[in-house]
Amino acid sequence: MLRDLVRRNRSYRRFSQKDAIDIQTLRELIALARLSPSGGNLQPLKYVLSCNPATNDMIFQHLTWAIYLKDWPGPGDGERPSAYIIILGDKAIAGSFGYDTGIAAQSMLLGAVEKGFGGCIIGSVTREKLTAALDLPEHLEILLVLALGKPAEEVAIDPLGPDGKIQYWRDGQGVHHVPKRLPEELIFRELP
Amino acid sequence: MLRDLVRRNRSYRRFSQKDAIDIQTLRELIALARLSPSGGNLQPLKYVLSCNPATNDMIFQHLTWAIYLKDWPGPGDGERPSAYIIILGDKAIAGSFGYDTGIAAQSMLLGAVEKGFGGCIIGSVTREKLTAALDLPEHLEILLVLALGKPAEEVAIDPLGPDGKIQYWRDGQGVHHVPKRLPEELIFRELP
Repeated sequence: MLRDLVRRNRSYRRFSQKDAIDIQTLRELIALARLSPSGGNLQPLKYVLSCNPATNDMIFQHLTWAIYLKDWPGPGDGERPSAYIIILGDKAIAGSFGYDTGIAAQSMLLGAVEKGFGGCIIGSVTREKLTAALDLPEHLEILLVLALGKPAEEVAIDPLGPDGKIQYWRDGQGVHHVPKRLPEELIFRELP
Repeated sequence: MLRDLVRRNRSYRRFSQKDAIDIQTLRELIALARLSPSGGNLQPLKYVLSCNPATNDMIFQHLTWAIYLKDWPGPGDGERPSAYIIILGDKAIAGSFGYDTGIAAQSMLLGAVEKGFGGCIIGSVTREKLTAALDLPEHLEILLVLALGKPAEEVAIDPLGPDGKIQYWRDGQGVHHVPKRLPEELIFRELP
């Protein structure tokens, strides 16, 4: 059921790095993005795929992890992602990429979860440097990076406390806690 | 399987209007949006739900349908949506809504498909007028409208032709054709 997939699709930041993801798996995720809605059907998104450890290492250098965990610099050796999908916007096709990016990212993440993997949407990317490292042509802009792997951490969903804090945190057992607003806060109005 | 859901999740614009969608179904879709990723975990999206025919009629007046079908003003009586979810951005929480909107929209649409419904993401909304009609407070901004119902049209996915045209079109039998770029065009590079 989709609800189960959505619930299991947490933002994972620690992985079992020895569990590889093959290129065919990444292509299957792109197939999901391909069949997802696109504003005006322009389909301006392009993708760069990586599942080779050395190339993954290069990409990893350009990412910043978990802004709210000040004392944690990101996943260490052995717990890093096994693959990346870099989402690009093709400026030759569209001037902006609207809602397509989020839509495609969610399709791919849900697909990864179904396959026993998981991931994290990373928006904090040193774009200029990664663009140079990938030698991307002028018309392709890095939008987001999906980090993918076999999750090796537990993520708990908590109700937002009375303090209203939305910052995720890790407890003494290493469980990652994510406060989520309750449905009654999200539903502004049910129209009569 | 998710792939099947993603494939069946086409942008439907004609529905069997007599098939109602109840408020509980809409709440279940919001539950999917609630558990979807949010940038910095801010969760700035809010929702207005409508499944009452008279209220649906009011919302319908504020939407523009299918920009590429110049001779079609939108669904007629009897084939209009049975429900709407209006996605709002709460400016008291965030200055912009990044990828959250697309992510949440895709979760909800896939959920609708799983329940035997389908929908269309509508970005062409007369926002000022709908904001006034809903009497929304200053801090809530209309981002998108999801139109939902029991699909009553066939949608075919075609490969993009050599002319590169991405405009969808309807054939003589009323089948809605959507040209989709092929995977080899979407995958810019598979890194070695």
